Amino acid sequence: MNFADSVITRVRELGHPLCVGLDPHLDLFPPLFRRGSMAAEDPATVVAVSDLLTALLERLPGKAAIIKPQSAFFEQLGAAGIELLQQLMGRARELGILVLLDAKRGDIGSTAEGYARAYLDPHAPLRADALTVNPYLGLDTLAPYLQRCKDHGRGLFVLVKTSNPGSGDVQDLNVEGRPLFEQLASKLGTHVSGFAGETDWSSLGVVVGATYPDQAVRIREALGRGLFLVPGYGAQGGTAADAVRGFVPGPAGLEGGVVSSSRGIMFPVAAPSSATAWEQAVDAALDRAIDELGNAVARR
Amino acid sequence: MNFADSVITRVRELGHPLCVGLDPHLDLFPPLFRRGSMAAEDPATVVAVSDLLTALLERLPGKAAIIKPQSAFFEQLGAAGIELLQQLMGRARELGILVLLDAKRGDIGSTAEGYARAYLDPHAPLRADALTVNPYLGLDTLAPYLQRCKDHGRGLFVLVKTSNPGSGDVQDLNVEGRPLFEQLASKLGTHVSGFAGETDWSSLGVVVGATYPDQAVRIREALGRGLFLVPGYGAQGGTAADAVRGFVPGPAGLEGGVVSSSRGIMFPVAAPSSATAWEQAVDAALDRAIDELGNAVARR
Repeated sequence: MNFADSVITRVRELGHPLCVGLDPHLDLFPPLFRRGSMAAEDPATVVAVSDLLTALLERLPGKAAIIKPQSAFFEQLGAAGIELLQQLMGRARELGILVLLDAKRGDIGSTAEGYARAYLDPHAPLRADALTVNPYLGLDTLAPYLQRCKDHGRGLFVLVKTSNPGSGDVQDLNVEGRPLFEQLASKLGTHVSGFAGETDWSSLGVVVGATYPDQAVRIREALGRGLFLVPGYGAQGGTAADAVRGFVPGPAGLEGGVVSSSRGIMFPVAAPSSATAWEQAVDAALDRAIDELGNAVARR
Repeated sequence: MNFADSVITRVRELGHPLCVGLDPHLDLFPPLFRRGSMAAEDPATVVAVSDLLTALLERLPGKAAIIKPQSAFFEQLGAAGIELLQQLMGRARELGILVLLDAKRGDIGSTAEGYARAYLDPHAPLRADALTVNPYLGLDTLAPYLQRCKDHGRGLFVLVKTSNPGSGDVQDLNVEGRPLFEQLASKLGTHVSGFAGETDWSSLGVVVGATYPDQAVRIREALGRGLFLVPGYGAQGGTAADAVRGFVPGPAGLEGGVVSSSRGIMFPVAAPSSATAWEQAVDAALDRAIDELGNAVARR
């Protein structure tokens, strides 16, 4: 099935576009889940991360359509962290949750082919449903990933306008009268329809930070019907209304992508008193995000 | 020790800037080294890759100062591939060979911090001496890596002008009269001296493809004394003379970075008849690259 169709269908059913980010910041682990020194090289740390993320995953069925593991936080644990990532992606598949791996890969030629194989091939140990990639090396470097969108129903999210304060250093540069991010969205826009599904949404999508809502509108105009992945909602300061500014009306409200929230859901309280207290806090944080985002996309 | 000093000192001693790329393309494995199906998910594949790369590493002491493992080809093997990468980096350290991990990472805020921890912290399971990174997300996102250059003597190579045919899509865009890659080199140039060592070379370096020698000259002018990592020599068509076009005169000849060669050295013959024949072919390929690059940097 086309990735965009999978996402949009589930988002319509759930009534909100929440994507739960898995960003296991070691510094933020509550005492309840801490094991050993919590240093990246301590084998006990992987156990702590596994316990928290496994417990989190079990809260999600029926609530969130998609998760977004952040590769960096698994890589910092070395091979044991990648083993854990592999297990968690498998468990998400069992639970019927889509996996968007946030790895922001980018390389050329046969190396880009290597990354596409690593994350988007059907039998790859680390296979995901979709991947984030970096466009700096040129649009030719996206070809291996796009081939997997066609062949295996995968999705691709190209970094266009990221949520950080310094994203303008390169992305806002004035290229013949238009900011680079808009030029890039236009170039990608010429390819979007080639990856569209039955919902008319395309599996060739982009990353646009919730912290730049006006830019999101310009990117939507330039791109057409490619999915948005919107980070920066919650902890980074983007509101739910900001996060869906690039969405457009659909049969069940505003639609056009997913909005990720990580820290607010994974670490809802600094020091929960028990596993049950932590579960209740996670459920409450999920419900709050679902409510906010659901209201933001609801027909008015 | 400052990373740039380590590199330049060894390059001067050896008389050439060769960096040996470790790009285990599964499709290129000679029959002698193939195991099982050679599919990414077959556990036998990791054994094949381990055998070839371990044998290759043992040919390098006294010949090459630095290796450049290409992360994608390990990631495609899943957690077992990362375990192998970890082992190979450890073996290189034992052999006194510097490790530049070609992972082209790029992310924001705490996630960039995660990548810096993963690859540049002293006790990180996957610690390397230097890392390649992508600047598209903004110069603020380089801060965590640069902190490790200062604190732990690491090196950083920022993608500026890559060797692929489509690199111009973004990198050559006209930004107020100058190509983007040159603007970026100028911006980085203002930070280069902060990471300089006793050789006056800086551990804040850039990636410039051997396939763009004229651009290398412009980047050198804009950047100052930051190291170059030059891919694209050999298989991609750049000559030895092209590869060192951005180098400058030093006490032992032209200097200013390293030039990587991967396929030509790892896979010098399609079907060696024996382990000995493969070793001889690897040694001959190494000697040829050393000779070419040594001549290119020699004082004339």
